[in-house]
Amino acid sequence: MSLDRMIERIAKMQNPTVAGLDPKLSYIPGYIREKAAKQWGEHTLEAAAAAILEYNKGLIDALSPIVPAVKPQAAYYEMYGWQGVKTLAETIAYARSKGMFVITDGKRNDIGTTMEAYAAAHVGTTDVEGEAVQAFGGDALTVNGYLGSDGIVPMLKVCREQDKGMFVLVKTSNPSSGELQDQILENGKTVYATMGQWCEAWGKELPGKYGYSGVGAVVGATYPAQLGELRRALPSTFFLVPGYGAQGGGAKDVAEAFDSNGLGAIVNASRSILCAWHKTGAAEEDFAKAAAEEAVRMREDILSHIGQIRL
Amino acid sequence: MSLDRMIERIAKMQNPTVAGLDPKLSYIPGYIREKAAKQWGEHTLEAAAAAILEYNKGLIDALSPIVPAVKPQAAYYEMYGWQGVKTLAETIAYARSKGMFVITDGKRNDIGTTMEAYAAAHVGTTDVEGEAVQAFGGDALTVNGYLGSDGIVPMLKVCREQDKGMFVLVKTSNPSSGELQDQILENGKTVYATMGQWCEAWGKELPGKYGYSGVGAVVGATYPAQLGELRRALPSTFFLVPGYGAQGGGAKDVAEAFDSNGLGAIVNASRSILCAWHKTGAAEEDFAKAAAEEAVRMREDILSHIGQIRL
Repeated sequence: MSLDRMIERIAKMQNPTVAGLDPKLSYIPGYIREKAAKQWGEHTLEAAAAAILEYNKGLIDALSPIVPAVKPQAAYYEMYGWQGVKTLAETIAYARSKGMFVITDGKRNDIGTTMEAYAAAHVGTTDVEGEAVQAFGGDALTVNGYLGSDGIVPMLKVCREQDKGMFVLVKTSNPSSGELQDQILENGKTVYATMGQWCEAWGKELPGKYGYSGVGAVVGATYPAQLGELRRALPSTFFLVPGYGAQGGGAKDVAEAFDSNGLGAIVNASRSILCAWHKTGAAEEDFAKAAAEEAVRMREDILSHIGQIRL
Repeated sequence: MSLDRMIERIAKMQNPTVAGLDPKLSYIPGYIREKAAKQWGEHTLEAAAAAILEYNKGLIDALSPIVPAVKPQAAYYEMYGWQGVKTLAETIAYARSKGMFVITDGKRNDIGTTMEAYAAAHVGTTDVEGEAVQAFGGDALTVNGYLGSDGIVPMLKVCREQDKGMFVLVKTSNPSSGELQDQILENGKTVYATMGQWCEAWGKELPGKYGYSGVGAVVGATYPAQLGELRRALPSTFFLVPGYGAQGGGAKDVAEAFDSNGLGAIVNASRSILCAWHKTGAAEEDFAKAAAEEAVRMREDILSHIGQIRL
């Protein structure tokens, strides 16, 4: 149930990582941008969206045999208008057609019927004149719990019906995450620890076969002590771990997020994979090959700290 | 600056309300849905998106002489896929062409360059091969501050450059908002009061001509005591007040959100306006007229408690 398909792919591929697809037009090889500009006009959102889709497909082709999941970040698609959002939908469909698990990183949050609409949009289906139609069709969605359980319960319902999952922001990787998240509440626990406990409780509604529920938590690699503390406190909550690489988290740091079977977390890298060819000096036509090589390096780096992954 | 254009329209129209555009296909008159289905196919997202756009345009035509602002809720457009998101962009453009102030209700949140991407998407411009292109073009965006100032500072920058504004979730209208927001922090204040103070501080970066900054706060009509407490504590923070009507907040409750000049808040109503024709039993062709009548009723109701609005 829920995140089980992701967990099975992680174990099968012996790779607890997810490739963030956060494309900016300026990251993309010139030959792809020029082709799109010729077709759609140089300064158009259509051209940007077309170039990003081609880039993403190249990355997915190269990464899908190695990496179990992708995490498109909605912001980078919205920034290119509805045209970019169309590319988001097409990217999700393409990744799923290659067997990848898709985590849509939208950090969505609202209440009641509005949260139901987000759930329908991203992991469910929408009623259109009596027929259930898929809008974006991701496998899991990141969500923000500031509004309390009214913002999560509608997701639980859709995830249960559709066998999908979610990741709730708990302790984020950014420097200012502590402003609110590290504050101590009346229960003597921090905001992030409390949010984590809620994930554990919400997760009881979405039990999984491997001991982890469909309600995961986002916990940054940049706070290894908190990662370890949360891993021990939240035995049924799977972690999505951003902040490896560019933001400063190393493999030793992220190792804290895993249990003794090498399960319990999936570590994200975005720019280091997306833009690997910038760094290696590879020919731009080899962007996908460079991404795959970086993905293999990252897997080896993390596995060297956690050992074999056992279901 | 920032929210000033909204404040000027509120004063000019003597109407401190905003119409939420949260359309579900099932709310829309049959003749509009049938026309769209004929053109695009009955069970298609294209037909849903086309029907919603026509409905929204009818509402905007009727409401723009009466109501200063609209607040499209992103979830209801995303639920109809990229086709729905295209309707969101077209709805924003149409409302702005009629002079309305547009608050995009997306409750977006992220950090650093990702939050910059959301800011570019919704209230700024996106660089496409050296040219600044507008993606959605709203006037203000609702945001969620769980990630701390790293999630707000990128918005401040774009809002300053583009003369736009934001509303940060402070005390939301839903029953479970207190689970996190009412908890007392180490400073002896609640989470919501602390978030409110941060709005006041962030707002110093976006000062406005009428005493209110470009950083507003979302505070629900369903918690009138907190509304009044926050109004007194946050003299420079303009409030976006959901929860009037359907959620149970009355005009007397929302009156707490206003200062002695009748300024300081804009009150949202969505379904009561959108679906007014369901309630009055009007002919479906008169949906926009019924919406306008309900908007006038709501304005009179609120003005009767706050008196004249003076700049």
